[in-house]
Amino acid sequence: METGDGGHKKWGFRANNACGITVRGVLETLMDATNPEDERQTIPLGHGDPSAFPCFRTTKIAEDAIVDSLRSAKFNGYASNVGFLPARRSLADYLSRDLPYKLSPDDVFLTIGCTQAIEIVMMAFARPGANILLPRPGFPYYEACSGYRKLEYRHFDLLPDKGWEVNLQAVEALADENTVGMVIINPGNPCGSVYTYEHLKKVAEIAKKLGILVIADEVYGHLTFGKNPFVPMGVFGSIAPVLTLGSISKRWMVPGWRIGWLVASDPNGVLKETKVVESIISCLKISVCDPATFIQAAIPQIIEKTTDEFFNNVISILRKSAEFVYDQIKDIDCLTCPNKSEGAMFLMVKFNSTLMDDINDDTEFCLKLAKEESVIILPGTAAGLKNWLRITFAIEPTSLQDGLLRLKAFCKRHAKK
Amino acid sequence: METGDGGHKKWGFRANNACGITVRGVLETLMDATNPEDERQTIPLGHGDPSAFPCFRTTKIAEDAIVDSLRSAKFNGYASNVGFLPARRSLADYLSRDLPYKLSPDDVFLTIGCTQAIEIVMMAFARPGANILLPRPGFPYYEACSGYRKLEYRHFDLLPDKGWEVNLQAVEALADENTVGMVIINPGNPCGSVYTYEHLKKVAEIAKKLGILVIADEVYGHLTFGKNPFVPMGVFGSIAPVLTLGSISKRWMVPGWRIGWLVASDPNGVLKETKVVESIISCLKISVCDPATFIQAAIPQIIEKTTDEFFNNVISILRKSAEFVYDQIKDIDCLTCPNKSEGAMFLMVKFNSTLMDDINDDTEFCLKLAKEESVIILPGTAAGLKNWLRITFAIEPTSLQDGLLRLKAFCKRHAKK
Repeated sequence: METGDGGHKKWGFRANNACGITVRGVLETLMDATNPEDERQTIPLGHGDPSAFPCFRTTKIAEDAIVDSLRSAKFNGYASNVGFLPARRSLADYLSRDLPYKLSPDDVFLTIGCTQAIEIVMMAFARPGANILLPRPGFPYYEACSGYRKLEYRHFDLLPDKGWEVNLQAVEALADENTVGMVIINPGNPCGSVYTYEHLKKVAEIAKKLGILVIADEVYGHLTFGKNPFVPMGVFGSIAPVLTLGSISKRWMVPGWRIGWLVASDPNGVLKETKVVESIISCLKISVCDPATFIQAAIPQIIEKTTDEFFNNVISILRKSAEFVYDQIKDIDCLTCPNKSEGAMFLMVKFNSTLMDDINDDTEFCLKLAKEESVIILPGTAAGLKNWLRITFAIEPTSLQDGLLRLKAFCKRHAKK
Repeated sequence: METGDGGHKKWGFRANNACGITVRGVLETLMDATNPEDERQTIPLGHGDPSAFPCFRTTKIAEDAIVDSLRSAKFNGYASNVGFLPARRSLADYLSRDLPYKLSPDDVFLTIGCTQAIEIVMMAFARPGANILLPRPGFPYYEACSGYRKLEYRHFDLLPDKGWEVNLQAVEALADENTVGMVIINPGNPCGSVYTYEHLKKVAEIAKKLGILVIADEVYGHLTFGKNPFVPMGVFGSIAPVLTLGSISKRWMVPGWRIGWLVASDPNGVLKETKVVESIISCLKISVCDPATFIQAAIPQIIEKTTDEFFNNVISILRKSAEFVYDQIKDIDCLTCPNKSEGAMFLMVKFNSTLMDDINDDTEFCLKLAKEESVIILPGTAAGLKNWLRITFAIEPTSLQDGLLRLKAFCKRHAKK
């Protein structure tokens, strides 16, 4: 180009700085670090997407719902910005089953998976000076999204010795008059924790005291297999208003279908009255990214027809795998696990680098593990907690066994003699 | 709530101002204005989505591709941020057919319809002080998106007396050292124009002179039925770099499937060299909204197997309907049409309010028409041009006839006596 150079310089300004850490990005780096000459299969213990494993294949009922919707040729056009009404109605009914009040379809907004629900919330609340409280460890997309939207975030700790409960004193100390809300992820990512009714009630009460709302990320909702049942945060929506984020991605094992939701779990109508709901609708309009219409239209059939047999089978596999990993980790000196996983598909384990010969932190651990054993584990740093590891156990059980054997061999080989 | 009121006030700030005019919003307002007691069917001549009409039903080949992809159970998981590689490869081949050079899959990024492609471009170029040149009339999502991203926009006129060509002098006068690019929409929305090879070359040359890139919105690509064939702007990518935006939405009549693309049509590699491509990838990562994976995976089969029979049939219906509307409008005194539609699915007609008894402008025209005749037409104001109307003719031919009869009756009834 002859004349354009002055012009071209003005284009390349954003590269490399728009995006913070993403789980996907870290996992891709680790995948790239594996040795192509290792003839063994790579064992992915870092992901949150077990859909590719035969034992976690989604139910035929859900597939049939999609095919019926598509073949009707009624849903090839644009949908409404807020989502297809029968799908919203069906989700309102589905979510109301576990609440002491009834949601209306007007409380429910469809999103591109749970990630767009996060994005819309951050977009709706971003303004100069405002801040939001995020859990540590947590899901780094919250930080990336707040950072990009210039919404200040402050971290409160989750307490490993108390089942990864929220440090409520820390929440109280962090909040000020510009705090708009706090995020909780339950069942927990990355911790695999499931909060009790009592703890969630305390969260609601502190939110009430601080005049903030609770953003409840329940993308792993119903994936629980320990002593505590899943209690939606919306149960306490009359104490403090709750925005519930969810998806069919995890319970139905179809993250690639890109259907999530954002729900005002707020029986007192505070979020309507204060125009938060209006603001969310406004953000959905400007965002314009809708889930595919025929997938939206399949939601009622997916929700109504999926059998407990499918859900129970998934839970049963996850429970066994969670116990297996917990037991295996006990045999590894440099790793300790304060809590058995009771939900989601993860376990958080603490890494003790002082017992190692040549590995100084979690990131180095994961990189060397990928390179030497073709096993992928997410370093805790990627979830905000250095020298911890997030291990996913939602893979085919035989691969899980293989992965743990390789992990053990790796740790033994690098241990101080 | 007892304590939260101070907190709640800080939430409701964004409502009503995040969003500019959207075509969808205007059409919803007009739909709401129709008389529920009118027993006749509402005739929608305002939309850009004919997928619901039997004569525009998509090909079974495309539906089959989706079903095959879904039933394979291989594509239920997350896709890459930039899109599924075989789909990008297939699109690179498809788009290269009409170019004097070969696109690589690395030049192609998948988006949620063409709208997300617009959003990503605006996001990638937004920075304080920068500006972008937009056509008037145009597609208001560009203005909404630039406005939201705080990217200044400046309008150049399209010339009705010259087949809605770009006023190149105006482009030159508007651009300055902070101008990053100019947008052209070809085939034209709202004008139904199709630019000649010569005109597009001139656009490229002026972009080169100004040191800006061309953002070529070709969402209506290949939907042409007049004297000019469709020439992709990318043909001139060696003169000035081009970002091509497109979608299967219009050519395949499936806007609800939410598959679009953003392509660097840039054989000299200027966009890579200046890190524009890197910036786009970065924006796709932060945006996180991917099209459904199994729909992405169906792209190769959709592209490769769709027959000319399907495309030719659609074109044939559009050609006849375009001529029919043009002829009918001639009989209406208050409406004049400088150009027959040759592409897309629209006709722009000029409204002369001085011939009317009680209608002062295009917005009032459309509101009264909706109310009295249950016919929906988009006021030109929504596309940036007051006292014009955008008429869609992509509906079932019998409904189109009915709609034109009602339009004639309406205009006659309101004409000055």
